[in-house]
Amino acid sequence: MGMIGGGHSSFIGIVHRIASYIGEEYTLIGGAFDTDYERAQAFASKLELNPERTYPDIDTFITKETALPAHERIEAVVVVTPNFLHYPMAKQLIQAGFHVICEKPVTNTAAEAVELEELVAKHQIVFALTHTYTGYPMVRQMKTMIAEGVIGKIQRADAQYYQGWINPVIHDVEKRKTVWRLDPDKAGQSCCMGDIGVHAFNMIEYTTGLTTQKVLSDLNTLYNNNPLDVDGTALLRFDDEVRGMVRASQIATAEENNLCIAVYGTEGALKWEQENPNYLYHLREGHPINVLKPGNAYNGKMATEATKMPPGHPEGIFDSMANLYLGAAKAIRGEAYLKGAFPTIRDGVRGMKFIEATLASSKNGNVWTPIND
Amino acid sequence: MGMIGGGHSSFIGIVHRIASYIGEEYTLIGGAFDTDYERAQAFASKLELNPERTYPDIDTFITKETALPAHERIEAVVVVTPNFLHYPMAKQLIQAGFHVICEKPVTNTAAEAVELEELVAKHQIVFALTHTYTGYPMVRQMKTMIAEGVIGKIQRADAQYYQGWINPVIHDVEKRKTVWRLDPDKAGQSCCMGDIGVHAFNMIEYTTGLTTQKVLSDLNTLYNNNPLDVDGTALLRFDDEVRGMVRASQIATAEENNLCIAVYGTEGALKWEQENPNYLYHLREGHPINVLKPGNAYNGKMATEATKMPPGHPEGIFDSMANLYLGAAKAIRGEAYLKGAFPTIRDGVRGMKFIEATLASSKNGNVWTPIND
Amino acid sequence: MGMIGGGHSSFIGIVHRIASYIGEEYTLIGGAFDTDYERAQAFASKLELNPERTYPDIDTFITKETALPAHERIEAVVVVTPNFLHYPMAKQLIQAGFHVICEKPVTNTAAEAVELEELVAKHQIVFALTHTYTGYPMVRQMKTMIAEGVIGKIQRADAQYYQGWINPVIHDVEKRKTVWRLDPDKAGQSCCMGDIGVHAFNMIEYTTGLTTQKVLSDLNTLYNNNPLDVDGTALLRFDDEVRGMVRASQIATAEENNLCIAVYGTEGALKWEQENPNYLYHLREGHPINVLKPGNAYNGKMATEATKMPPGHPEGIFDSMANLYLGAAKAIRGEAYLKGAFPTIRDGVRGMKFIEATLASSKNGNVWTPIND
Amino acid sequence: MGMIGGGHSSFIGIVHRIASYIGEEYTLIGGAFDTDYERAQAFASKLELNPERTYPDIDTFITKETALPAHERIEAVVVVTPNFLHYPMAKQLIQAGFHVICEKPVTNTAAEAVELEELVAKHQIVFALTHTYTGYPMVRQMKTMIAEGVIGKIQRADAQYYQGWINPVIHDVEKRKTVWRLDPDKAGQSCCMGDIGVHAFNMIEYTTGLTTQKVLSDLNTLYNNNPLDVDGTALLRFDDEVRGMVRASQIATAEENNLCIAVYGTEGALKWEQENPNYLYHLREGHPINVLKPGNAYNGKMATEATKMPPGHPEGIFDSMANLYLGAAKAIRGEAYLKGAFPTIRDGVRGMKFIEATLASSKNGNVWTPIND
Repeated sequence: MGMIGGGHSSFIGIVHRIASYIGEEYTLIGGAFDTDYERAQAFASKLELNPERTYPDIDTFITKETALPAHERIEAVVVVTPNFLHYPMAKQLIQAGFHVICEKPVTNTAAEAVELEELVAKHQIVFALTHTYTGYPMVRQMKTMIAEGVIGKIQRADAQYYQGWINPVIHDVEKRKTVWRLDPDKAGQSCCMGDIGVHAFNMIEYTTGLTTQKVLSDLNTLYNNNPLDVDGTALLRFDDEVRGMVRASQIATAEENNLCIAVYGTEGALKWEQENPNYLYHLREGHPINVLKPGNAYNGKMATEATKMPPGHPEGIFDSMANLYLGAAKAIRGEAYLKGAFPTIRDGVRGMKFIEATLASSKNGNVWTPIND
Repeated sequence: MGMIGGGHSSFIGIVHRIASYIGEEYTLIGGAFDTDYERAQAFASKLELNPERTYPDIDTFITKETALPAHERIEAVVVVTPNFLHYPMAKQLIQAGFHVICEKPVTNTAAEAVELEELVAKHQIVFALTHTYTGYPMVRQMKTMIAEGVIGKIQRADAQYYQGWINPVIHDVEKRKTVWRLDPDKAGQSCCMGDIGVHAFNMIEYTTGLTTQKVLSDLNTLYNNNPLDVDGTALLRFDDEVRGMVRASQIATAEENNLCIAVYGTEGALKWEQENPNYLYHLREGHPINVLKPGNAYNGKMATEATKMPPGHPEGIFDSMANLYLGAAKAIRGEAYLKGAFPTIRDGVRGMKFIEATLASSKNGNVWTPIND
Repeated sequence: MGMIGGGHSSFIGIVHRIASYIGEEYTLIGGAFDTDYERAQAFASKLELNPERTYPDIDTFITKETALPAHERIEAVVVVTPNFLHYPMAKQLIQAGFHVICEKPVTNTAAEAVELEELVAKHQIVFALTHTYTGYPMVRQMKTMIAEGVIGKIQRADAQYYQGWINPVIHDVEKRKTVWRLDPDKAGQSCCMGDIGVHAFNMIEYTTGLTTQKVLSDLNTLYNNNPLDVDGTALLRFDDEVRGMVRASQIATAEENNLCIAVYGTEGALKWEQENPNYLYHLREGHPINVLKPGNAYNGKMATEATKMPPGHPEGIFDSMANLYLGAAKAIRGEAYLKGAFPTIRDGVRGMKFIEATLASSKNGNVWTPIND
Repeated sequence: MGMIGGGHSSFIGIVHRIASYIGEEYTLIGGAFDTDYERAQAFASKLELNPERTYPDIDTFITKETALPAHERIEAVVVVTPNFLHYPMAKQLIQAGFHVICEKPVTNTAAEAVELEELVAKHQIVFALTHTYTGYPMVRQMKTMIAEGVIGKIQRADAQYYQGWINPVIHDVEKRKTVWRLDPDKAGQSCCMGDIGVHAFNMIEYTTGLTTQKVLSDLNTLYNNNPLDVDGTALLRFDDEVRGMVRASQIATAEENNLCIAVYGTEGALKWEQENPNYLYHLREGHPINVLKPGNAYNGKMATEATKMPPGHPEGIFDSMANLYLGAAKAIRGEAYLKGAFPTIRDGVRGMKFIEATLASSKNGNVWTPIND
């Protein structure tokens, strides 16, 4: 496994490395860890990596690695650069035949995501997008149960992602400048929807298997002189009369990482919360509430494969991320794997289209805007 | 105290009587309990009431009671008839000078509510509307803390009211006929928003003191051949950039009575859930979560007056309703009482306007619709 | 219904009156409310009671009421005097043929309780002891499910009752003097076990139907110059190898009213907490946790009869107490009622024996001490 | 880092390897992974380890590794063999100068633990005992707050560890034979207290800093023909009048891994539950309940160092274990580390003495038994 970015004190680099270690399927061999080559080498040395496979940039990485014999060559590359570089770097890597594990957001625009999707198909590589929350066992159990019809035909699907971290800076124009997510040049088209709303959207499509047809959204910048959304709601319309909602906020003061989802069907409901990830609530008409927990034999294959410990031993967010790495490892080795074992470029395309439709809807006066596919 | 309706096996009659007993401020003297006079008398006899003050209809009730000397006359009348009769009966009672305690919905239309508001002012009577949930001590504490600025300036207010009870009937046209709430002739303009959405709306305006300027709503009947909404979302716009949301559903399968509210301000947040009414969550930036409970000295006057037991002794929904009766009793006796001690005709007017705006917005293509005042 | 004590500002008097009102089965007619007769009459006047049936003392109450014709006479009398008077007053009332509803503790000693039990049998009256917590619907559902064998053969039963209210006074000898419960002359043999430990013990025997054979206890006065226990643990031994525990504390600082019970059987477990009384947790080997709530059709008859509202409308501690009154009303009217509908003098005898055995065990060096029956 | 045991499909081996990876401070170099050398080599090959440093047994491991130059030699060795081998293997490793990271139980007897403690001191090595639960950030925060006097002087400390996994086998003599923990030859003196009770005991001494003076215990084998305890309670006596309790059960049917602790002091209380490890409840007299969560600036240094993610991103049991590895790494490198950063041989000695005292107390008729130090 190689890594582009993620060196030195990169927080997200650590997350990905830990996730890769947990499953014991990947070994970090080298990469282009830093734009400062000296710092990259210091970093590699600290991790006791081979200095010859620490490269100054992605071009050198690709040239040198592809020159190696196939069995020595790095197979999969993790892209954890700043957001706006995800697209060009992923593109180069795909075209050079590497499998790619890419941080979110996959690209800057939906068109770029579509382009990557075509390239992935053309070059026959595995592309994993790290929508971390889909790796939790109870999220996978939710997906399994919905697919098995346990809650019947879906009639409502809601997801929420509330955080408060923008609140301490949004009220002060000077402080805002310290936050790159509030700068359109660095963050792209959207702050709140692009960063967290898209996770909530992904959770809905991931767990339900539904395809959103159109959205009507109302985004809020809180202040006129703040160009990007920090809060917003998107009404969702699926097939027929089935409705849903994504609401996301970064000014939900003092909320930490409150992502949750509830799906209601004709036979019952399933509810899950990210901050208490090891509980899945199954509501059934006329029955007591059922609370499912990981590690139990009543869970399906997908949740079971995503659990390492016996019941009652809480696994956390690194374990969730590690499950995506495990899924991708199976795909890379050409083994069979369950659909949904890891998010793919398909999830990336859907997410970027959701973000663009949401922005358009809000800008155009809160009108229904299709998400074409 | 008198009662119109509520006799025999009326469930809502029991609720109101218990609420009136709990505070030991009201004594049930008589009423027009039933359209079947014989049954009304049997009922009165079971409660050991004076048979002479059990009347066959509201007209006789008013004629006979107003003929009594002032100190013997029934002072306050509880209206717990079928919904469509609330308006005409309340109107008669107000005009005859009785104080009125009225079940929700106050009227059939916003115009009727405005008319009652004018009559209440003209006749100088006390009019209490039983939005039951405003009586919970922790809801009152929430109102107090927001008014005191504990969470700063509000930037988002969300309320949700999810139930699942329509689900077992909505999928079967025959079964639907057994539910009067799904019949426009009996239920009026709206099922879901009129019955429960309006409670969520009231909770927001009650606790925050904000006035909603406009709504954009998306209501769902689930089936084309079902004329009334059973699910819906309303985006709210308050002053400036402050947003909120009411979402309500009666097809949130297997939900029982899941009313909850969360208000986010510049300094923190307050969250409350009806099914666990004795916990108020206060989130503050940079601090541990604070969980407030009734009966403690740290609560304000309004919550304290609404609590009878020491901490840790859970009071419930009858106690909440009883607090509205206690507030109205103070008003009737001409004593000082805290603003918000009981919902008034003002809440009725706001609620009916919300319902009508929500219906109009959805019908007109999900457009912003003002709630004039 | 009559009442001995409970007048003026008596807190416990209010609780009992509200409980009696809620079921609409009792009407307060008169009583000996206060040792200060003038204050008793003022109190009666405030409640609009007949002044002629407000008596200066229990002797007059008994003489005058028994002189009335049977159909006019007060049938049941509530004893809510200071603790040390429960025994003599209950005794007089039983001997005069009144049904008695008595606050806990039933007597000062186990011997007195046994004496009352014999008198109750002899005079064929109904004696209800208000162990309030047995009235909660989910406690009754727990009893029902255990009786039906849902959790198999019991192998462990634990109850805990933790409060912190003694903490602010126990550390200061002067402050202690303000608390009658810490004064052996007024409180009797025990503070913590007598006041709250006995509730926990009663919950175990009530829900499981088991009979405790012996106890080994370790009581704590915290300071040598404090004569009464404020904290303690009692190990319980039932038949065979089945064990359990009661732990109680009044120095569990900042705990409010944390009574909880967990019973483990060969097939599963049931867990309940008083501060969240509307949730019953049913753990089953190999299955998701089941959470039961009141008002649902899956509950048994006993829980169902103890619930007035539809699911999701939380009832509280007054409603729990009211269920005891309803059970006693059925017994008084001679109607059939479910076993366990209200605690009887039997519960009083068991409780007093538990308290005495617990005190003896601790005093005698933490040795096993039988609870004979 | 080397490893003794833990090869092939060893569950506990995986746990330790993951924990060592997470902190990026250890690299697995070699070991004696398996009694079957061929299988050991296959295992090493799968992990891409150097085959030359995969040894057939601990003697070869020690001989060969100590023959290497100091900078090449394995520094720390993880002991994850079957329980009865912990003592002899740890002893050999200590005597050979390796740092040791050892699974629990540290030895078979208290005397052996004392012997190891002396050897650790003599050989100046780092000895870490993996009492996993002490690595959770909120457990460390609890320790910090108690040490800082936040809850005042302790007056009660309770811990509980309930599991249900023995239940499906204990009732059937044949099935019992499949469980090595129920076999005195393999499990040692105790099943329940030795396996889980000791964790609860360790949590109390770890978080409070108190030293238990004596215990009175009541152990339960459930059946006469079952030689080892599967359930038990131990009353604890600390200095002065301070009491506490450890209760543990493996027949608490359907409980998963319900370890929890509550400590009450003169100023407040702290409560924590292993299955929801990211919440610490701080109860204070006269204040709302405070709920602390990891990653927040209000936490102390010890909790902060044990957290990698921002607030709201739940870390789990591997992260907890990883924190022990990080603490030991600092000690091994000779860096400063906070007291309590990892459990040491001291915790092992205390734990073994607790187990032996508990067994003796119960066997001798539930009498107070000192835990000498």
